[in-house]
Amino acid sequence: MTEPTPTPSEAPMKTIAFVLYPGLTPLDIVGPLQVFAALGDLVPGYRTVVVGERIEPMGSDTPLSLVPSHTFEDMPEPYALIVPGGLVPTLAAMADERLLQHLRTTAARSRIVGSVCTGSLLLAAAGLLEGRQATSHWMYRDLLARFGATPVRRRWVEDGHIVTAAGVSAGIDLALHLVGRLAGSEVARMVQLFIEYDPEPPFGPIDWSAADSGEYAPFARKLLHDALGDAPALLAHLSS
Amino acid sequence: MTEPTPTPSEAPMKTIAFVLYPGLTPLDIVGPLQVFAALGDLVPGYRTVVVGERIEPMGSDTPLSLVPSHTFEDMPEPYALIVPGGLVPTLAAMADERLLQHLRTTAARSRIVGSVCTGSLLLAAAGLLEGRQATSHWMYRDLLARFGATPVRRRWVEDGHIVTAAGVSAGIDLALHLVGRLAGSEVARMVQLFIEYDPEPPFGPIDWSAADSGEYAPFARKLLHDALGDAPALLAHLSS
Repeated sequence: MTEPTPTPSEAPMKTIAFVLYPGLTPLDIVGPLQVFAALGDLVPGYRTVVVGERIEPMGSDTPLSLVPSHTFEDMPEPYALIVPGGLVPTLAAMADERLLQHLRTTAARSRIVGSVCTGSLLLAAAGLLEGRQATSHWMYRDLLARFGATPVRRRWVEDGHIVTAAGVSAGIDLALHLVGRLAGSEVARMVQLFIEYDPEPPFGPIDWSAADSGEYAPFARKLLHDALGDAPALLAHLSS
Repeated sequence: MTEPTPTPSEAPMKTIAFVLYPGLTPLDIVGPLQVFAALGDLVPGYRTVVVGERIEPMGSDTPLSLVPSHTFEDMPEPYALIVPGGLVPTLAAMADERLLQHLRTTAARSRIVGSVCTGSLLLAAAGLLEGRQATSHWMYRDLLARFGATPVRRRWVEDGHIVTAAGVSAGIDLALHLVGRLAGSEVARMVQLFIEYDPEPPFGPIDWSAADSGEYAPFARKLLHDALGDAPALLAHLSS
């Protein structure tokens, strides 16, 4: 929110790279992106980029299309890599070997690897969560176990250099936490002030009873089947 | 988040139109857009669109570019019109008579007119807030008075058919409130569940002391001057 301050030339720029792919849930990416963009405005040496397969408009699960600022090739070694989620297109992307390979290669060179919502399923499908604690959108959190991860019900989970957030809006909380870790709590609180993040959910906290009783499980299964029709082996592994 | 249900042909489609313009703060638009997109998935008869001057990528105050789904001309009569905000580009847009005229014309035909963050300054500059209570991002809330509105310090403010939200993330709360009004609290709570909006700001509520003491007032004034260099009369009116 402030004017960019020139970085001292001796300090290496730390790049926070957000992954964009067709069909994702825009709030998954925009929530934490807005937080880290403010970090870049407030603290010299941090910048955000949005990376995708190509620099062209990509649809989302809303009528908004989004355009990345860079390709994966432009940003081979970001400081942090953040993978947002979505519904059917993200579930389908679990079988997109090209995207998974981008994630594997880039994650191996990143100091922090993060996800929001079902983005953690992409990290898991890329083999990055094996033996780790992780979380995801509540509807698909248990699937993480099929990839060798331990699903945890928390707003965000840190396990080594990998951080995963719960569904959609949880990316804002995760990002503020990471900003606090990178730049201190004072900067994180300033970012929070600038994005006026003082939530007042008009109907109070979430009522988890329907989710916990499994009411949405058939719906979640149907979407998974819709998404993985062309990947029967993965579908069988995840449905068994 | 569910499959779209066909709308009975006798029910008129209610369109929630989000305004996109260059340089805005993407979380201002994406927060409430995600909420209303979920309404459209859950309840027949609602749909969201993103309207702009032209259907082409527009920069934001992050590295992400955004593309609207429709032009203003495509959507002359939405049910609701929501105007997001931003920093310098939004302040500059207070002098963009072409955009203001779009807002005036469309707002006159809309049942609900809303804003997020400094989007309320655009409604105010368009003459739509005269004699009304309204809110905005805390840094510019008091400016509303210069346009004949009464600034109110609340997460969101309803005055007749005009609803304004506080800064950036407040658009999510406002949108859930509106969904509750349009479709009932049960649907609003379902949307809240799907976007997993159970906020846990890692550093607790906002500490308002620096903002309240006026510490950021010189910064806010500087940005206003930067934005309105080409509109000296408006700048003088707002700075006097």
